[in-house]
Amino acid sequence: MHAPPIQRLITELSKLPGVGNRTAQRLTFHLLRVSDDDAFALADAIRELKLRVSLCEVCFNLAEGPLCRICQDERRDRALLCVVEEPVDLISIERTHEFAGRYHVLGGALSPIDGVDPEDLKIDELYTRVTDPTEPVREVVIATNPTTTGEATALHIAAGIRERAADVSVTRLASGLPVGSDLEYADELTLGRALTGRRAL
Amino acid sequence: MHAPPIQRLITELSKLPGVGNRTAQRLTFHLLRVSDDDAFALADAIRELKLRVSLCEVCFNLAEGPLCRICQDERRDRALLCVVEEPVDLISIERTHEFAGRYHVLGGALSPIDGVDPEDLKIDELYTRVTDPTEPVREVVIATNPTTTGEATALHIAAGIRERAADVSVTRLASGLPVGSDLEYADELTLGRALTGRRAL
Repeated sequence: MHAPPIQRLITELSKLPGVGNRTAQRLTFHLLRVSDDDAFALADAIRELKLRVSLCEVCFNLAEGPLCRICQDERRDRALLCVVEEPVDLISIERTHEFAGRYHVLGGALSPIDGVDPEDLKIDELYTRVTDPTEPVREVVIATNPTTTGEATALHIAAGIRERAADVSVTRLASGLPVGSDLEYADELTLGRALTGRRAL
Repeated sequence: MHAPPIQRLITELSKLPGVGNRTAQRLTFHLLRVSDDDAFALADAIRELKLRVSLCEVCFNLAEGPLCRICQDERRDRALLCVVEEPVDLISIERTHEFAGRYHVLGGALSPIDGVDPEDLKIDELYTRVTDPTEPVREVVIATNPTTTGEATALHIAAGIRERAADVSVTRLASGLPVGSDLEYADELTLGRALTGRRAL
């Protein structure tokens, strides 16, 4: 029915999460109507994203270049580490303005059913940071999602840190976050309170 | 908060209809997770769409090259013309498999408030087709949207055709379409019935 370039874009857009065939068609026809420059700006933004963004060598947050913006920021407290599953979670926490430390992005949560084991996440890298004598870490705040996999990951990491660095205190975001939800969707206030009221694990 | 290439894509995606800032952020992080090839396929599809798709010289449907697929199809009845506002409307009608004629895409509907006057649409081109002695048109089915602007456009075109080619019958899609709705969203059955039961205007 559609000309091949139209069908091709509809197919590509349909692969995006939450975008069905009808929405993909609407977006495609929208792009047909806008100027070439506007459409190319979107195409270029996608290309640039993949070409220029990589993972920070220290915390595995998204970065342009070897270090992310937070690891480059000398004002951030090196003694305080916040462990999150994904870069989006880091952004949610930054939005609360309640955290002045640094981050460690695991790249997911432990889930043996889905084949995600400790070696698939940046857990060893976390242990290396925590036990590094040149950069003493005082506290690790575990901010994995309050879901089954997130809680399991938190317990696993807490045990691992205690084993390797008994003097580092390990804390967990306070309850206040609705259980079973996703950290990415929490409002700033709730997430800020959960951060302030973090408890020992 | 975000690195510039990430913020740039979020901004570009937010310009799409129905895509807010949160959705744009989700889509951006999804694209960060997929392979480079998958992301580039989307970017290329957008570029190709704009580079390869233009308007058919005859009916102003979307086309690769000078003529659209329908105008290239010799089996389509040249004596029967269906007038629609936009290329998406043509696709909706094609989906009913009830129409064997050809199309004429106006590129919108008359709306003086929005500054859309007859000369902004392909109305003169429609009159030229209808009055062309080498390609006799027997009937023009006006399938503009059943909205205020669509109805006004239908009446305007019907009068214009009657003035120039009194022997051409002008019809309108039957009621059956919910008034105030958009043709693009009609289901095949309703739209098919509206087409079968079209009435003289």
